[in-house]
Amino acid sequence: MELPTIIQDVVEHLSRLPGVGGKTAQRYALAMAKWHHEDVTSLGRAIGQITELRKCIKCGMFSDDDLCHICDSTRAGSSVLCVVENISDCIAIEKSGTFRGLYYILGGVLNPLMGIGPDELGLDRLIRRIKEEEIGEVILAINPSVEGDATCSYINQIMPEDSSAQRIGFGIPMGGSLEYLDAMTISKALENKKKM
Amino acid sequence: MELPTIIQDVVEHLSRLPGVGGKTAQRYALAMAKWHHEDVTSLGRAIGQITELRKCIKCGMFSDDDLCHICDSTRAGSSVLCVVENISDCIAIEKSGTFRGLYYILGGVLNPLMGIGPDELGLDRLIRRIKEEEIGEVILAINPSVEGDATCSYINQIMPEDSSAQRIGFGIPMGGSLEYLDAMTISKALENKKKM
Repeated sequence: MELPTIIQDVVEHLSRLPGVGGKTAQRYALAMAKWHHEDVTSLGRAIGQITELRKCIKCGMFSDDDLCHICDSTRAGSSVLCVVENISDCIAIEKSGTFRGLYYILGGVLNPLMGIGPDELGLDRLIRRIKEEEIGEVILAINPSVEGDATCSYINQIMPEDSSAQRIGFGIPMGGSLEYLDAMTISKALENKKKM
Repeated sequence: MELPTIIQDVVEHLSRLPGVGGKTAQRYALAMAKWHHEDVTSLGRAIGQITELRKCIKCGMFSDDDLCHICDSTRAGSSVLCVVENISDCIAIEKSGTFRGLYYILGGVLNPLMGIGPDELGLDRLIRRIKEEEIGEVILAINPSVEGDATCSYINQIMPEDSSAQRIGFGIPMGGSLEYLDAMTISKALENKKKM
């Protein structure tokens, strides 16, 4: 049984979302087909407007202006810079409310097989910014993965002499239970033990 | 940290999809923000077109014309009618390739608390169709739930005298294992035992 082209078209697009396969995309499309027409139109329009989103020229965060509300705030004078992979990582850190420095969003990690090298991530701009804004401490809040680890090593190598790079800590998450954690996390947690 | 209005708008809409909460919706919206502009525009347009979808005047299935490709095929003469809750149930049955009769899509089940009564489901149209097309056998392929059971009982009561209503079988699904199935399914399976 063939679904109408209109539905197939939506399904094809939605299947490209993270964690969404053909079946889930079809479920979403069929759900939309049951919505009120105004809601469907309004979602279509809202998605179309995503193309109008602007990004901060300094850090890469969403912004209504050239500079985002962090780069354009009193935090601008900070000498601590947190480097993250994606905007969503930045949002997660901001939500934790425990960091008051600046950000730099890479938009990915080094991945030579996918053609993502230092130029694609704008690493030269990062280094220029560290120098210009006299950043003393760079926190690499990059997720643990082969590519993430390589990206951290690379950034550490090209760091200006008077700045230092640190990576966020890895270990048992709060509320986590040793019983259910994977061997890699446990091994990292033992490695990162700290005097009480 | 406030997300841009554009993103918040998309998140709000997407959160209404089945199984999608605020966090997943945000993940989807942020993923879209990383797409090429053409893809975003094209998804927005595709969703907008859902409002142009037409439905078969007889069964309620998606259709390019007044009648869908089932109601307008050689199957039209069939005397077997399968009643389902939603279009997606109809699609699932068609995919199984084991049913060659006609369909009637209710668009829901009786739910007095939500204001869904016999009129909202078009049960009078269903009965009229059964009479007009001389349907001898009605298969109620309605999912098992309190509301689904009530809907089946109700339809059974208002059935024309010379037609019979049957409900699809319930029991252990293929590949299922007694060990992991819930008590209700096991009890239904025992109840529905069949001579070998």
